[in-house]
Amino acid sequence: MPAGLSDTLPTLLPVAGIRLGTAAAGIRYTGRDDLVLVELDGQTRTAAVFTRNAFCAAPVIVARRHLARVAPRYLLINAGNANAGTGDPGVADALATCRLVAGQCQCEVEQVLPFSTGVISEPLPLEKFHDGIAQAAARLDPAAWPAAARAIMTTDTAPKAVSRQVTIGDETVTITGMAKGSGMICPDMATMLAYIATDAALARDVLEHCLREAVAGTFNSITVDGDTSTNDACVLMATGRSAAPPIEDVDSGSCRRFTAALEEVCRVLAQAIVRDGEGATKFITIEVDQGRSREECRQVAYTVAHSPLVKTAFFASDPNWGRILAAVGRAGIEDLDVGRVDLFLGDVCIARGGALADTYTEARGREVMAREDITIRIRLGRGDAGATVWTCDLSYDYVRINAEYRT
Amino acid sequence: MPAGLSDTLPTLLPVAGIRLGTAAAGIRYTGRDDLVLVELDGQTRTAAVFTRNAFCAAPVIVARRHLARVAPRYLLINAGNANAGTGDPGVADALATCRLVAGQCQCEVEQVLPFSTGVISEPLPLEKFHDGIAQAAARLDPAAWPAAARAIMTTDTAPKAVSRQVTIGDETVTITGMAKGSGMICPDMATMLAYIATDAALARDVLEHCLREAVAGTFNSITVDGDTSTNDACVLMATGRSAAPPIEDVDSGSCRRFTAALEEVCRVLAQAIVRDGEGATKFITIEVDQGRSREECRQVAYTVAHSPLVKTAFFASDPNWGRILAAVGRAGIEDLDVGRVDLFLGDVCIARGGALADTYTEARGREVMAREDITIRIRLGRGDAGATVWTCDLSYDYVRINAEYRT
Repeated sequence: MPAGLSDTLPTLLPVAGIRLGTAAAGIRYTGRDDLVLVELDGQTRTAAVFTRNAFCAAPVIVARRHLARVAPRYLLINAGNANAGTGDPGVADALATCRLVAGQCQCEVEQVLPFSTGVISEPLPLEKFHDGIAQAAARLDPAAWPAAARAIMTTDTAPKAVSRQVTIGDETVTITGMAKGSGMICPDMATMLAYIATDAALARDVLEHCLREAVAGTFNSITVDGDTSTNDACVLMATGRSAAPPIEDVDSGSCRRFTAALEEVCRVLAQAIVRDGEGATKFITIEVDQGRSREECRQVAYTVAHSPLVKTAFFASDPNWGRILAAVGRAGIEDLDVGRVDLFLGDVCIARGGALADTYTEARGREVMAREDITIRIRLGRGDAGATVWTCDLSYDYVRINAEYRT
Repeated sequence: MPAGLSDTLPTLLPVAGIRLGTAAAGIRYTGRDDLVLVELDGQTRTAAVFTRNAFCAAPVIVARRHLARVAPRYLLINAGNANAGTGDPGVADALATCRLVAGQCQCEVEQVLPFSTGVISEPLPLEKFHDGIAQAAARLDPAAWPAAARAIMTTDTAPKAVSRQVTIGDETVTITGMAKGSGMICPDMATMLAYIATDAALARDVLEHCLREAVAGTFNSITVDGDTSTNDACVLMATGRSAAPPIEDVDSGSCRRFTAALEEVCRVLAQAIVRDGEGATKFITIEVDQGRSREECRQVAYTVAHSPLVKTAFFASDPNWGRILAAVGRAGIEDLDVGRVDLFLGDVCIARGGALADTYTEARGREVMAREDITIRIRLGRGDAGATVWTCDLSYDYVRINAEYRT
């Protein structure tokens, strides 16, 4: 069902200094793992970006607070219950899960970051965490990335994880990341949940810089349904255990190479989330260029990406390009001269100067629309800026999945 | 299927000075009228508001231009083909239809306003207009409002029209209006197509004022799918044929009474469009209050109204209120203190101070959600402003209707 996504994971490389353990805690699902414990060795530096939703979940509040105080030693992630919209009792529950980890693993409570994903507004079944945490701690293993990537899934139909290596100062540095997400996807700072580890050594400001840079054009450039989650978080952990020299300058060549590799990991994970978008049958790349600013290009791209009329046309493989132009027209771009707008579907020019291109035929449009991966290219004809956004179509299954979610 | 809407029209009162004629021109539909000619007598004053979509349709360009020059004598409305995204040839076609009316009815070309609704980006089948216009002109009748309301329908499942009367200076004034619209509904100035006539005498500035006032809280406060049409238009025609004294001051009591009646006509029509929203099974009123400004209340209301997750939960009659709070949280309201936000579904308090209300039970939530008409009330706890927006749910049928639209 997912658009060009396989249930098989690629080879995932362990990252020295990181161990993962999973458990079937029965928080919501039965017969599968739903709890992940990630152990970070003592010198690991960690950065994270969180949802900008004002109604952020209790674990986001706690994780943000803990991260601001000390270097984390453990991440605790549960699937099935988001612990969001749960008020002060929810915050107390999130703290209680950190205390369970601290007791089990002999660390400070503040050295644990909690993360939750799943149904909003139900109390966390705290009693299920005790045994689950003990089980996960007993199974800590550097090679457990595949099991962890599966354990954090909710409505995802396929696990999402990838590894990349890059050479820094003649030494190989590894980056391995995993993510989950399928609905409520319009990250405004980070995606649903993504965890990326590297054995590179990164100075504190380099770490923050790399994460910010890598997220902007990847996790923060996707949308499934325009709904920004209450639980979004993206965590980057750098153990410094590789033999490569530390990266200490954001303007250095090694920082640029590392950031490029990190961005590729983020892009693979972000695109996998869109490909697995709830009910998705098509993967759609929206490239907007010739804009006055990156911001206005993003505004146009997101307006097209969120249009239910555009999304249902793609589901139907119908080259109803008038809907795309109508979305461009209502994107709120000041002084937009529609007489300068060009539109391409794949390599087929549909509209030139705001009107149907002479060379366009419905047959050529249908041929492109029948594909699983489709690129919409919009030229605004008013500047040099550009932006790319990835999204999917809107199908019956999106409605079914979200109408039945709690039943 | 439409949420609380009947196929039966209420009694529609003729408006002295206005005649309507319909015809089955076969522009797209067969076996039904799809063309409407409206005749305005010589002293009629007309005002209109049009779509703000930068890709406005050819007839919108022509109608706006003609209206700026002379007082219209005829409106020509066709359903089935929007004549949008058709470039310069589309404008020439729209002008050609005006010429056909001018020839048939002996008036100036500029005294005709063209309106189109239907499929975007297909050329207008001009050859079908000649006979259609002749037929419609031969059938002009002050009592033809019901036939006209049916002839302008596209994906609408029910006609939308209403009459109201109001006393001005001891004399009765009549207002009769009709509208069409079901999808691509998020008017940003006017609705899909709405035509309202009155026999009141209104000064030019009073006419414009009344239309602006009446549209703001009605047609400009609804959304089905967030897609602003390329063809939106709302026209107010005042024939001045009643015995009532002219309304010449926007601050007069008679202007206020007239505006209130006009607003009621607009509200009935606007709500009918939402009730007939493509695939709609629920009619949802979103009231946001205690905001710092009307604008921020509208922003919150529209974010909730456009959330696919909220809309599918309503389709499923699932009181998944966490999705409503999540939408409020991502609405982009600066410094929103979620600890002060209250949420009601109908008369049931769901959340108080951002967290679950003590008195809430899932059974009470389900009871409200089972209704066809549901009010979401959101209190922001930070000011005195408020705003109301109307919308509908998102069902399988929305996807079906829009995936199959051109097949």
